[in-house]
Amino acid sequence: MTTNPTPQIWLYDTTLRDGTQREGLSVSIEDKLRIARRLDQLGIPFIEGGWPGANPKDVQFFWQLQEDPLKLAEIVTFCSTRRPNTTAADEPMLQAILAAGTRWVTIFGKSWDLHVTTGLKTTLEENLAMIRDTVEFFCSQGRRVIYDAEHWFDGYKHNQDYALQTLEAALKAGAEWLVLCDTNGGTLPHEVSQIVQHVVQVTGDWVSGTGYRGLGIGDWVSGTGKESTHSPIPNSQFPIPNSPFPIPQIGIHTHNDSDTAVANALAAVMAGARMVQGTINGYGERCGNANLCSLIPNLQLKLGYSCIGEHQLNQLTEVSRFVSEVVNLAPDEHAPFVGRSAFAHKGGIHVSAVERNPLTYEHIKPEQVGNRRRIVISEQSGLSNVLAKARTFGIELDKETPEARQILQRLKDLESEGYQFEAAEASFALLMYEALGGRQEFFEIKGFQVHCDLVEGKETNNALATVKVAVNGKNILEAAEGNGPVAALDAALRKALVNFYPQIGTFELTDYKVRILDGHTGTAAKTRVLAESGNGYQRWTTVGVSTNILAASYQAVVEGLEYGLLLHSQAEVAVKGIGD
Amino acid sequence: MTTNPTPQIWLYDTTLRDGTQREGLSVSIEDKLRIARRLDQLGIPFIEGGWPGANPKDVQFFWQLQEDPLKLAEIVTFCSTRRPNTTAADEPMLQAILAAGTRWVTIFGKSWDLHVTTGLKTTLEENLAMIRDTVEFFCSQGRRVIYDAEHWFDGYKHNQDYALQTLEAALKAGAEWLVLCDTNGGTLPHEVSQIVQHVVQVTGDWVSGTGYRGLGIGDWVSGTGKESTHSPIPNSQFPIPNSPFPIPQIGIHTHNDSDTAVANALAAVMAGARMVQGTINGYGERCGNANLCSLIPNLQLKLGYSCIGEHQLNQLTEVSRFVSEVVNLAPDEHAPFVGRSAFAHKGGIHVSAVERNPLTYEHIKPEQVGNRRRIVISEQSGLSNVLAKARTFGIELDKETPEARQILQRLKDLESEGYQFEAAEASFALLMYEALGGRQEFFEIKGFQVHCDLVEGKETNNALATVKVAVNGKNILEAAEGNGPVAALDAALRKALVNFYPQIGTFELTDYKVRILDGHTGTAAKTRVLAESGNGYQRWTTVGVSTNILAASYQAVVEGLEYGLLLHSQAEVAVKGIGD
Repeated sequence: MTTNPTPQIWLYDTTLRDGTQREGLSVSIEDKLRIARRLDQLGIPFIEGGWPGANPKDVQFFWQLQEDPLKLAEIVTFCSTRRPNTTAADEPMLQAILAAGTRWVTIFGKSWDLHVTTGLKTTLEENLAMIRDTVEFFCSQGRRVIYDAEHWFDGYKHNQDYALQTLEAALKAGAEWLVLCDTNGGTLPHEVSQIVQHVVQVTGDWVSGTGYRGLGIGDWVSGTGKESTHSPIPNSQFPIPNSPFPIPQIGIHTHNDSDTAVANALAAVMAGARMVQGTINGYGERCGNANLCSLIPNLQLKLGYSCIGEHQLNQLTEVSRFVSEVVNLAPDEHAPFVGRSAFAHKGGIHVSAVERNPLTYEHIKPEQVGNRRRIVISEQSGLSNVLAKARTFGIELDKETPEARQILQRLKDLESEGYQFEAAEASFALLMYEALGGRQEFFEIKGFQVHCDLVEGKETNNALATVKVAVNGKNILEAAEGNGPVAALDAALRKALVNFYPQIGTFELTDYKVRILDGHTGTAAKTRVLAESGNGYQRWTTVGVSTNILAASYQAVVEGLEYGLLLHSQAEVAVKGIGD
Repeated sequence: MTTNPTPQIWLYDTTLRDGTQREGLSVSIEDKLRIARRLDQLGIPFIEGGWPGANPKDVQFFWQLQEDPLKLAEIVTFCSTRRPNTTAADEPMLQAILAAGTRWVTIFGKSWDLHVTTGLKTTLEENLAMIRDTVEFFCSQGRRVIYDAEHWFDGYKHNQDYALQTLEAALKAGAEWLVLCDTNGGTLPHEVSQIVQHVVQVTGDWVSGTGYRGLGIGDWVSGTGKESTHSPIPNSQFPIPNSPFPIPQIGIHTHNDSDTAVANALAAVMAGARMVQGTINGYGERCGNANLCSLIPNLQLKLGYSCIGEHQLNQLTEVSRFVSEVVNLAPDEHAPFVGRSAFAHKGGIHVSAVERNPLTYEHIKPEQVGNRRRIVISEQSGLSNVLAKARTFGIELDKETPEARQILQRLKDLESEGYQFEAAEASFALLMYEALGGRQEFFEIKGFQVHCDLVEGKETNNALATVKVAVNGKNILEAAEGNGPVAALDAALRKALVNFYPQIGTFELTDYKVRILDGHTGTAAKTRVLAESGNGYQRWTTVGVSTNILAASYQAVVEGLEYGLLLHSQAEVAVKGIGD
């Protein structure tokens, strides 16, 4: 193991627990397993998997991980302290946590006196006992404990003494990490900074003043301290550096209700916190949790902390999109660092300057986080944007030529009709080829008809489509059924073309988005369809616009097929800058 | 005029200029005017309207505002310093700014030596002359100048002396505000804090050390200083408090590339900045600008600064949604303060606690920003969520009853089929009424057929729908044409029903969203449609799921009609919590 010259920050991902509290997000066990394994590859040391017992899915999730464990990461269970006036050993809830078989357990407890008396409806003393008893119970069972101090900042502001007593109870009972949670997300960075500094100082005093010494991660690895009682589950492969840590370790868990979750976590780290909890893409209840996709590059590239390997950092964009794909939420295109627009240049001034010297308009190199620079085509585009964009398709345009001006004009006309090429680069490429006289005609659509007959209970093949297509001067008429009109159209078209172009067999429509262009006129309004197609290793997006949703869909689907054929037939054209 | 006991922060909105740089956002002149007038009502003192001359739209926009001015806000033009080796008086670009007829002009200039030499390709001295000359020119023409120091923080870090010289040039030439811009968005809050503190100190020294005294807003109002040369455009109605300001005034303009735009602006204010620039909903290039919808409540409710009136603050959620509506972008449901989910409670633990004491789980009162608490129904819902949700529809359920459990079960079954009720509260209400035996049957759908025939060039009435509906036991068969199948279906259905239910004439479909539930199987996958309907003063959302996009659309449209009829017929049912 190498010693690390930069201070280590321990990342703790809670996408699978706190992240799934996001409104509109739901995941299957299989989804959770896929995400956990991807986070493991990314080098996240702690992955919170859920609360087994509170949720039947989570029981199975941990059971499957016992069968086929993660490679390096520690998978962590999450649960509350025992209920008031019970004993931890008799709590079925805590038995379910033990049964999950993780080495690490995160226990959350109340820090805020108001929550104890009005939420739990118990005494302040009993809450301390609940924390103590629960942490001690897990330690006695050989588990290592992270203590999440729920509502820490609000609790501290209302009753500092009591809040600190809860931390002391957890620490003395054996918790190795004390994580300060801004559960309601209302705290601002300057407050986080002051409060974390105070906690670091006070907890340090406890340790040195009382002679108490808890366990640090370093002890466990280096074989010092109370390791024997704490590591009964063998075969950890997690590469924990062999340096002793100061005890206790402070962590931070923030929410974005004040739009400062990332800044709050950074403020805590700069005040001495060494664990950062967050989620991929900032998913989480209400306004979300601290976004690890922003925190990791800020900590590592800007503040010089060590979090994950460089070869892992440059997977960050891919991981962000992978997770959004698995949880089936559209990625935030404007997300810092990993969004599709994060390094996109639109204004004419920027584009010419960024091409001369990227440093002048980019705060980091996009490749460091696996993202890339994009030149955006839009209504505001000047000629220099069009030229720069053309270059990403391997086309050198001369700005003095009529073709360049013609493309710009055509673009503006289409955008005024409601087309949008910012997200449909394949349609933009076809438009350029057409202007340059190089658009290959693979087929010509002569017409199509769709018929749907929907009666109660008939769910399959309820749509029939007929298409008439000409290929090399030969007319083909085909019909196909489908579950819905777009599926039927797509099927009929492929059926008509596949004999001429067998590669169409590998294409598939991977995503399909519909937008009503004028929200005020409902179904009579223009519809814009974005269709994403793929061939197994590349993806491209096309656009269609019409007052008829089927006509718009069809345009986009047809251009998707055409562009796919172009990719196959013109492998010599350097088609860069599309396949994401 | 009242004197203000709390320090004033001057808000400067750049939604109409920097905001429109956002990828995917484009606005008409009419859109810009609507937004400007709404921001004026909100109490934003400075509204940047655009760069007349660089954009033909912007020329017209300012011309229209000369005809029909804003009530209180100052509308501001934006442009760069003159080009190298020219004179300001001879620059046609600057003449276009004068022609726009605004009292205030924002000039942006280069702070970073690298941008001067590699971007502008001129000398450092010429850049200072450009700043000086341009600011002096506008002052000589009776305009008041805000100086935006582009790339301020990067410039300061690379060459502090030169960066400060650019500010001094602008100040001595007559600029009243010096705005520090983090153009690339790479700066973190602790750096902003240190640098702004330094600038406040240095610029203060200039003023006191040299005897120089520029103009402050206060001078203009109170009639001191050089007012006569500075206010040739009469009739300002902006209620600027009558207190003198320290000179010079520092402003802050941040971008969100590091996910800290809001925190950066707050750090600047705490370090002495008194103008905050940002955009509604954080729209802006790449990852966006600082979000005024987050900044205003943070500054006003948490830090005690005065920005806008209380009666204006509680319009914030409405303004956020209005702007997203006008620019035709889906609102960010998870936006801090103003998002639909910002005060949504999903987890079972939270819901019971928040009902007992909102303070325990909410960082501010949602009403302060015009938002409201929501109880979310989802797969993770426990019975307490369902009961709480039912209460928002005026239905008291007893959790011991089979009905309550039956609703929960039905909800879970439908969600596993792909239905989602989080965003479709009207469909959820219908489901509840059904379980309770109170779902009124207004009509029964017997079947429908749709036929589309699309040939080149035929864009209108290319779809024909027939529906068979039973009302009060009587069968009605109707057919209608439409631009597209959903429009035809909607038209046929209304035609069949309007004789029985004339109020249907006031309903309209206001939004329509389509989501493919499994992105991997393209058109064969299940489709979920969310349809938003309105009756002119309320809006409600319904959901439909099917492998056939038309069947899913139809379900949602039909439930939308049904719920609208229910609203009309059961005005006695307190239907709270829907119409947003």
